[in-house]
Order: sequence, then C-alpha cells, then structure tokens
Amino acid sequence: LGGSGPVRVAVDAMGGDHAPAAIVAGALRAHRAGVARVLLVGDTDRIRDALAGDEGPEIVHAPETVDMGEEPALALRRKRGSSIRVAAELLAEGRADALVSAGSTGATVAAAMLVVGRRGVRRPAVAAWVPLDEGAPRAAFVLVDAGANIDVQAEALVSYARMGRAYAQAQGVSDPTVALLNVGAEPGKGNELARAAFELLGDVEGFVGNLEPPDVLAGAADVVVTDGFTGNVFLKTLEAGLDSRQSPGAAIVLGVAGEVLVAHGAAAAEEIEAAVRTAATVAHAGLSDRIGDVLQAPSTT
Amino acid sequence: LGGSGPVRVAVDAMGGDHAPAAIVAGALRAHRAGVARVLLVGDTDRIRDALAGDEGPEIVHAPETVDMGEEPALALRRKRGSSIRVAAELLAEGRADALVSAGSTGATVAAAMLVVGRRGVRRPAVAAWVPLDEGAPRAAFVLVDAGANIDVQAEALVSYARMGRAYAQAQGVSDPTVALLNVGAEPGKGNELARAAFELLGDVEGFVGNLEPPDVLAGAADVVVTDGFTGNVFLKTLEAGLDSRQSPGAAIVLGVAGEVLVAHGAAAAEEIEAAVRTAATVAHAGLSDRIGDVLQAPSTT
Repeated sequence: LGGSGPVRVAVDAMGGDHAPAAIVAGALRAHRAGVARVLLVGDTDRIRDALAGDEGPEIVHAPETVDMGEEPALALRRKRGSSIRVAAELLAEGRADALVSAGSTGATVAAAMLVVGRRGVRRPAVAAWVPLDEGAPRAAFVLVDAGANIDVQAEALVSYARMGRAYAQAQGVSDPTVALLNVGAEPGKGNELARAAFELLGDVEGFVGNLEPPDVLAGAADVVVTDGFTGNVFLKTLEAGLDSRQSPGAAIVLGVAGEVLVAHGAAAAEEIEAAVRTAATVAHAGLSDRIGDVLQAPSTT
Repeated sequence: LGGSGPVRVAVDAMGGDHAPAAIVAGALRAHRAGVARVLLVGDTDRIRDALAGDEGPEIVHAPETVDMGEEPALALRRKRGSSIRVAAELLAEGRADALVSAGSTGATVAAAMLVVGRRGVRRPAVAAWVPLDEGAPRAAFVLVDAGANIDVQAEALVSYARMGRAYAQAQGVSDPTVALLNVGAEPGKGNELARAAFELLGDVEGFVGNLEPPDVLAGAADVVVTDGFTGNVFLKTLEAGLDSRQSPGAAIVLGVAGEVLVAHGAAAAEEIEAAVRTAATVAHAGLSDRIGDVLQAPSTT
C-alpha cells in the first residue's frame, strides 16, 4: 500500500447497467464512510453530472467505454482511453491499491491480465463467494472459475484449486477443503476435462473429490473448482432460481498482480459500496501478493 | 400397441433408492387405478414381500440388479438377468408398451440403446420437462440432454433440438422454439462445443439462439439443448436450490425404438405412480414412432 494513507480504490464509473449514476452513488458512500479514498474513472462531465455538486472523490478522465458486446482483449487494445483500461493503469502504476468494475467481466479480466499482469499462474480466474443456507456447515464457499476462462485444460483447474484455497485462507478459513464440481461423486465420473482434472487434483492439499451440485449447495467443501463455462452456468442458474438466497457479492480476479473486483453488471449503489469495502479489505490484506507467494512456493507448484 | 387392451408398462422394481417397496407401492396404485397393466420386473420373492398379499400386477422374475456405481454398458452385458435388462427385453419383444425405471440413469439409457435399439439418431438423449414459475409465458420447457451423453460433438445437439421439438409437439406445443443453453446471449459466446453447435443449430426450425440460465428459467424457449454434462449440472443445481419449484417429473429417453421413462433415484411411491401414468400417455401417443418419423423425414435430416 502507498504508505500510511487510506486505501485508494479506482472505480470504473462507466461500467454496469446503471452506470454512471449507481456506480458514482455507491462509490461516493464508501468514500464518505472513510472506507477508502475513491478514484472515479470515466467521462468527467458525466461523472460530475452524477455527483450533482457532491465533492470528495477524485475524477480521473477516461473518454471511452468498452461495451458488453465487444471482444474484450481487442476492445482493450483499441480503446486505450477506456475507463476500465485507465482504471487498470492506475492500479498497475501504484496510483490505486484496488480496482472495482461492474462492466463487462471479460473486459475486466482482460484488463487485469494485460495491464495489471499475471502473478503466479498462466490462467487467472474469477472467484466468487457463494452464500449457503443456514444450517450448512459453512456460511459460504468459493467458486473458481466463475467464468473467466471458457475453454481450459485440466491443468488450469489445479491452479484454480490452489488459488481458491489461498483466497479462502486469506479470508480466515483454516485448512480449506477443495472439491471438483461434477455430475457424480465417484472417481471416473464427468466429461473428459473433469476426469482429467480429478486425476491431477489428487496432488492438491485438501482435495476431497467430486461433488454434485446438491452436495456443493449443502456446504460439503470450502472451495469448488470447475471450468468457466460450467461455473458460469452453475452460478447464473443459482442466482436466477434462488430468491431466498443472498446474491453473491463482488467476485475477484485471482492470479493477477493487484486486487481486481468484479461487481454485478446490474449492481445498485449498495452493491458498489459493498464492492469498494471488499476491495479495501483485500488491499489491506495484500491478497494478490499472498496468493502469488503461495503459488510460487515450491510445495505447491 | 398390443391390440385393444390396456397399455402394458414394465416397471423395474429393483431400481431406485427406495426399491422395491416404494416402486412396488407406486406401480400397484397405477395398476389399480386402471392407468396401465403393470409388469413388475425383479426378484420375485422380494416383490412378493413388498406386495404383502396384494395381487394384480404380473411379476416377471429377474434375479440380478445393476448397482449405481457400475459401468452401465458393461453391467448390462454381464448381467443378462438384471431387472433393467429383463424389463428392456419385454419392451423390445413387444410384451410391454413402455418401461419405467428409477435405477441408474446410465444403465437405463444403456438398456434403451442396446436392448430396445436406437431409432432415427446416433445419440439418444434424456429429456426432462422443467416446470417454470407462475407468470412465465409457458408452464415448462424441455431440457435435452439431461445427462445421457457426457462428452459429445456439436452435431449431437442438432439431433437433441429436433427430438426435443418433436417431443414438445407430441405433448401439444405448437411450433416449439429451441434455444442453446449458454453463458451469453450473443453469437460467438460459449465454449468450443457451444460455438460450434450455435452454427449448426441455425438450420433447425424454431431456433431462437443462445439463452443464459436466467432467460431459460424465465421461460424464453420451449426446448433448451445442451451437452449432458452441462445439462446435468444445470438440472441438479435447479433441483437442489429451488424449494418453491416443483421437482421435474420422470425424464424420457428420446431417439430409441420404444417408450423408456427415467424416474428419480429418490422417487417415492407417488412419483412412480406418476411415471407410470406418463409412460401410459406416451405409449398411447406412440411417441417414439412419431419422433422417429420426424427425424427420418427428409426436411429435418
């Protein structure tokens, strides 16, 4: 962190269904509550309009935006003035300690990889805490990958397991258990990817085997790994169906050299405020460094 | 159907978590209600014990069972006296008009393919009606494949779309719409399989494109196709999470030369009774023949 001052969180003011109004409102609340020093990144005029005379957060001008339909890596390279790219540069240059965006997940992950840079793994991934029902043996589990990498090899799931475990540990879970999301509990179940991953995951500390969705949702493991396609379908099915369940909070990009938080596209001001709080917490904890250290330690590579 | 008598439904009395008691009880109810003439297939002594003096359904002796952990095709070849194999033979030989099993889905699908035989497609699949919330534009949608084929090529999803459409039509849906389950709505979204399937599905009548889980659950299409791994994860996530939603009824094997119903492993007597009713309905409708005709028609192959 940059000395003894408050944590500085760059917020992509232009990303999300309700941007910039809801983003600016949520970021402003977190800023005023002293959670973090917020840097609002985006079109200065539109941010000023959204602030409606309020002062406090610094505005960093970014004239362009990445749209939801754009191919992320391409958009990021072409639009050097896009709010997500400028925000990622603040993080990469040490002018911010964390980044929050409710824009395209693909663009945020691409910015994390291309601008902030990988740390410790070939495939950064998105991890989401999924809250469990009361009565489950744990309050939530970490799902990796929630949708960053759609087509992967089995080796990637091993790095997801190690990153997910380090993430859970950094958030206070001692000796986290790790499971593979699958269509059956027995070894040998699943598609080609799952069967290959099962073999490799045997070497990961805390691995408890395959789990079917009902067991995952009963809280049978702290960390659940799967490919980004299956993880995204699983998470969206859960979110669509479960009215009674809290929606998962902001997700995080694991395996990059900085704290990058992915808020819901539909995030309202409260969710942006919560995401800035989470960003401040993980920045304080130096999460990305801790995960990078774990991944680079000889015992886990 | 075998003349003018009642529909004959072979019930695998030994398959399911609560077999034979719950299976026999449910089948007996359907039999007594005149829904169908039930043939109870399994260990004669255990079925007699479960009947506890009740009479009516014919018992067809089968001394072996296929266990949940067994490799389905192998178990089916080795255990010629297994209840699922003997029940499938009754169907293949025209001594029954439909088959219901709550045993291993894999073994039931394997019996349908190996004993009853394929009809019209290379890859038979399992279709499940998934009930939707009130207020949705339709009461339910058909999910294909619910888990029969874990590793498939894109071409299989085209046959799933055609079979699912024919199934929905046979159950009264006029001009069914078909969607591909995916992680994004735009063309080009998804993993390698989904992207390839999207291209091929353009030729299928009623195809409306990609749908994400929330749109599927909002009732945006009549038929939703996906590979068996993703379909199984989707269905099990839904079943585990949605207390308020009715659990889907028995699933059906599409693309085989007879009516084969897959009841829940955990099925209680009521669910077995309902599955026998569904079996009688689809046998009356000659569903497998209708689907076979559609698939073999020049305009849809």
